[in-house]
Amino acid sequence: MVCHTPVYPVRWDRENQCVILIDQTCLPGEYTTVNIRNSSEMARAIKIMIVRGAPAIGVSAAYGMALGAREIQTQERALFLEQLEAVAEMLKQTRPTAVNLFWAIQRMLETARDASGSVGEIQSQLLAEAEQIQQEDIQTCQAIAQEGVKVLPDRPERLNLLTHCNAGALATAGYGTALGVVRSAWAQGRLKRVYADETRPRLQGAKLTAWECVQEGIPVTVITDNMAAHCMQQGMIDAVVVGADRISANGDTANKIGTYSVAVAAKAHNIPFYVAAPLSTVDFKLADGGEIPIEERDSQEVAQVGDTRITPVGVEYYNPAFDVTPAALIAGIITEKGAVAPQDLISLKG
Amino acid sequence: MVCHTPVYPVRWDRENQCVILIDQTCLPGEYTTVNIRNSSEMARAIKIMIVRGAPAIGVSAAYGMALGAREIQTQERALFLEQLEAVAEMLKQTRPTAVNLFWAIQRMLETARDASGSVGEIQSQLLAEAEQIQQEDIQTCQAIAQEGVKVLPDRPERLNLLTHCNAGALATAGYGTALGVVRSAWAQGRLKRVYADETRPRLQGAKLTAWECVQEGIPVTVITDNMAAHCMQQGMIDAVVVGADRISANGDTANKIGTYSVAVAAKAHNIPFYVAAPLSTVDFKLADGGEIPIEERDSQEVAQVGDTRITPVGVEYYNPAFDVTPAALIAGIITEKGAVAPQDLISLKG
Repeated sequence: MVCHTPVYPVRWDRENQCVILIDQTCLPGEYTTVNIRNSSEMARAIKIMIVRGAPAIGVSAAYGMALGAREIQTQERALFLEQLEAVAEMLKQTRPTAVNLFWAIQRMLETARDASGSVGEIQSQLLAEAEQIQQEDIQTCQAIAQEGVKVLPDRPERLNLLTHCNAGALATAGYGTALGVVRSAWAQGRLKRVYADETRPRLQGAKLTAWECVQEGIPVTVITDNMAAHCMQQGMIDAVVVGADRISANGDTANKIGTYSVAVAAKAHNIPFYVAAPLSTVDFKLADGGEIPIEERDSQEVAQVGDTRITPVGVEYYNPAFDVTPAALIAGIITEKGAVAPQDLISLKG
Repeated sequence: MVCHTPVYPVRWDRENQCVILIDQTCLPGEYTTVNIRNSSEMARAIKIMIVRGAPAIGVSAAYGMALGAREIQTQERALFLEQLEAVAEMLKQTRPTAVNLFWAIQRMLETARDASGSVGEIQSQLLAEAEQIQQEDIQTCQAIAQEGVKVLPDRPERLNLLTHCNAGALATAGYGTALGVVRSAWAQGRLKRVYADETRPRLQGAKLTAWECVQEGIPVTVITDNMAAHCMQQGMIDAVVVGADRISANGDTANKIGTYSVAVAAKAHNIPFYVAAPLSTVDFKLADGGEIPIEERDSQEVAQVGDTRITPVGVEYYNPAFDVTPAALIAGIITEKGAVAPQDLISLKG
């Protein structure tokens, strides 16, 4: 098998002046990339989840803004900024829950507004800013990983960690948040095995987390989501680490559907449950998780797996893409500035 | 769509002198039946889950014994009984968790031992006994359903019930245990909607429970297993009703993997969690659930859905088919003799 490490799901191709995305809808069966040449293609790629994961969505949206800026024909600054706002609006419509999307778009808009010089110079600055966001995200992930291993249970034996969905290199600019912690634990010889919830309906755990672990030789056991509580009951899990799509000021955390179920089970078994995420995932404007918009996706995701239809005609479906884990179930939120109890998150507000 | 109600998954065909099983591995895509002509075919059908569900496995095993008895060539009573023991052993090897399998086989062996007359007469008595077990199971399910609706939350509005896996007509001789309670609640105008966990890895909820509900026009919403806790958090669920594969004397309940996860979540939301099962599912010989053997099935069930492979090469799997829900999480065990708190189960010992 070709080794694809380190994994960078979003890259700028200087030669061809386009963004290269790993097509995450084809993994693990096929490793392919898609060239994204304009902002509309980027919006579509985010919507249909060619790229996914809150930080990776943020980086991709930043590049989408840079591409959109280059599509604007005017040389008038005011008109340019106006048309850039339209690009921002289009990109914002893609996915409602991950706050990194809005954070990155906002940062790009502010960069444009603050920039001096010609439209051409602003366009260049926006591309540089997107590259900067990408580089920062990789560094942030590595900082999160370093902070994360510090808070893992301090035991003489190596640890069995459980994760849900994919908060890995594929979900970020590289290295990963929750899976970054797993990677660091493995590198330090503190990890025995990672248990990956398959994460229905889109199976990011079985497909993407498993794939990333296999690339690096990290021992991984795939389980169906409904086995997590049983594994905890059997004493197989020492700690849980997951990512986040949006965290409210009080520490309530929106993450992939099923995260809440894992958190409830972890609490019942007195197993520490950690959220690993960059501070750009924290939405300090929201007091609590009840204010986080939850994306509901197409029912076909539940009705079938791949091309296999599993349900009969005549049933209804419910397909929330995320759920909200209350701060009370979270042992710590691991950020690039350190791990804190949810109630102390506010102290990290920049 | 052809209406297949009432659903009888195991039937004796007098004309062709064989057992007719609904092939549950083909539902909901296709409604087909399989003719079972000997005890080996029955053992295979149980093992590969053409028939599944603890009570249905019990009825099928009883017919397997009746078929096996007819295969024995000797006219000597002692030799006949000896060879019938071998049939029993073969059938016992099929699935380890559901106690109804062992219960039915034991009852058939005792019937043979107690029977007077020729081998031919014993063979006839065994077929009659299998038919008797089948009829009793349907009556038992109806009694369970009647007892079940009595304990459901008494609210002016109609109820939203959650169930896991399939404890329906397909899992019994007919009518169902947990889904029998749902059916009765629907018939009495007390049910608004049933939420069916899809129940990975074999998807009995998405396939079988959904199919049964569609046949009878019961409103059903299919969710992935990891959505159940979120639905509870959103106030969408009034009570949970599930079946059982084996219940120990203290009320600990082995049921399809994921049941425990639902029970933990129900407890956290103060939602009553009921187990509906015939007394033949109670194994009074076992003090607690720790003694219940848990079947581990082929990892391919986790690695793929239908023909769709979902995981990369190089990962490991864990595939326990059942888990054990401790009695402390169970609001009541609904049997044909009434619903009782788990600690009072012993009072129903026959």
